[in-house]
Amino acid sequence: MKLLKITNSSVVMSTSVKEQFVTMIHELQDHLCSVLEREDGDGIFITDTWERSGGGGGITRVMSNGTVFEKAGINTSVVYGTVTDAMRKQLNISGEQWFACGISSVIHPANPWVPTVHFNYRYFELYDAAGTLIDYWFGGGADLTPYYLLEEDIINFHTVYKQQCDLFDTSFYPSFKQSCDTYFVNKHRNHEARGVGGIFYDYKRPTNSMSANNWIALASACGYGFVAAYMPIVQKRKQQAFTAQQKHWQEIRRGRYVEFNLVHDRGTLFGLHTNGRTESILMSLPPTVRFEYHDKPTANSPEAQLLAVLQQPKNWVKL
Amino acid sequence: MKLLKITNSSVVMSTSVKEQFVTMIHELQDHLCSVLEREDGDGIFITDTWERSGGGGGITRVMSNGTVFEKAGINTSVVYGTVTDAMRKQLNISGEQWFACGISSVIHPANPWVPTVHFNYRYFELYDAAGTLIDYWFGGGADLTPYYLLEEDIINFHTVYKQQCDLFDTSFYPSFKQSCDTYFVNKHRNHEARGVGGIFYDYKRPTNSMSANNWIALASACGYGFVAAYMPIVQKRKQQAFTAQQKHWQEIRRGRYVEFNLVHDRGTLFGLHTNGRTESILMSLPPTVRFEYHDKPTANSPEAQLLAVLQQPKNWVKL
Repeated sequence: MKLLKITNSSVVMSTSVKEQFVTMIHELQDHLCSVLEREDGDGIFITDTWERSGGGGGITRVMSNGTVFEKAGINTSVVYGTVTDAMRKQLNISGEQWFACGISSVIHPANPWVPTVHFNYRYFELYDAAGTLIDYWFGGGADLTPYYLLEEDIINFHTVYKQQCDLFDTSFYPSFKQSCDTYFVNKHRNHEARGVGGIFYDYKRPTNSMSANNWIALASACGYGFVAAYMPIVQKRKQQAFTAQQKHWQEIRRGRYVEFNLVHDRGTLFGLHTNGRTESILMSLPPTVRFEYHDKPTANSPEAQLLAVLQQPKNWVKL
Repeated sequence: MKLLKITNSSVVMSTSVKEQFVTMIHELQDHLCSVLEREDGDGIFITDTWERSGGGGGITRVMSNGTVFEKAGINTSVVYGTVTDAMRKQLNISGEQWFACGISSVIHPANPWVPTVHFNYRYFELYDAAGTLIDYWFGGGADLTPYYLLEEDIINFHTVYKQQCDLFDTSFYPSFKQSCDTYFVNKHRNHEARGVGGIFYDYKRPTNSMSANNWIALASACGYGFVAAYMPIVQKRKQQAFTAQQKHWQEIRRGRYVEFNLVHDRGTLFGLHTNGRTESILMSLPPTVRFEYHDKPTANSPEAQLLAVLQQPKNWVKL
């Protein structure tokens, strides 16, 4: 199941950080797939391993039509190659060779009382023509997209990630929460947020107070933190009865998820425009979706209450 | 119902071409809405007129949940304003003021034996700081996206547009057909075509043999040609029985339509990134959609036969 073939001689410099990160994401992938399968009780993750023609490959794991999880993907990739013009332009980077590894997940539950969730943790290295490491950084995050505002669930999600971030630096959560609220926005929908946020960080380089190993540990803490942040919500809500109208609303909102991912998400667009593995990238798209002209919930309905919060991000825990 | 407010003194130069084009698209909009309503027998086009804060506005007409047409939009807009940096960059234009008018339609039938269809005809003007007209051009096209390869239907569609183009210049259809096959492609899906093509032209300026009035007439001929190109297909197929599996396939393929429109379509992206009217732009998205991981039709099935043609565009009529 493990895929780690770093044959490019130019990528020897910081093998240990890379190897640690790769090991961590593979372990996390296996663990979370098991957790989700157990919770679902029915659905199974299939496994597709793939190779990238330019270097490296990945492990895509997808559950389709589970009882609880209508569509869930947890993917890892360990890829490397030559810096292309498209990358120079879109990522604003220099260098000649690159290496990237990461885990990425989107989970679309069947029940509209259970939120959709996304997380991603990644590590990137850049080398010059001589193969010398010239830059490296960490990125990641987790965010929640509910269909109804069940505040205790949202507070639980934010509380867990705050706790995990606080283990490293109490300035992280407020900053990462802000970045998340800024990033996951459908600008073309009057700047409506995709969901109720979480954490998001990028281009994080080691400092005196936060070593590379600390950044790996943070990704791991948040990665495994998912079990406490999200699974209690699933357990509490997965049996809650819902109407056809509530399912309809979920499918309308899933349309906004599609819009964000295909129009704004940098990772998705970069992957699609640089010949990434389309099936793995687009596992993030919801299983069933509706697009209706000018859908508008009635005033003061639970649906309208959600939209109000998406227009004005809230602090769910004390900063 | 008509919306034509050209109050900007800088846009007086070629009023007659503009006015003719605007009149034509409004008449065409009314006519086609009537034709589609009559064919549907049940669904009604609602009308939303809107104003654009930067100048101009539009008339959006949408039918939702008709018997035959699950979602159909026929929109016109007559808009103008100051050239922004975003426009300079994305459209590669100079000039200080612009004017644009157009009609745009996407029709998603309920029955998977009836293809989805799109058309668009537009006219654009550019002015310098003194308000002098410095450039103007015509664009447009129509293309068909079937869920099953019913060759006589596809041939009818292409034949009508070839006939309309041939009225002006027999070199047009081969060239416009080629442009259409080149443009409507999901590059991230191994260069799979969105559908079986049609015609597409852009940046067409008057020449000795093709005056501005000829370009208006061509847009009109193709615009009204829709009635002969598409409606006979609807009449023949709208009652044809289909299975749940065939509806499922339609929804999967509609997912590819969403992907093209949100990831690649220049008009959609330009509108969304420049504060266009989102609801009118995204009326093009299909009503119900499915995204499944690695869906693959069985070999030699009718579904697989469609995919084979989408990988290798065909000439449907003699060029």
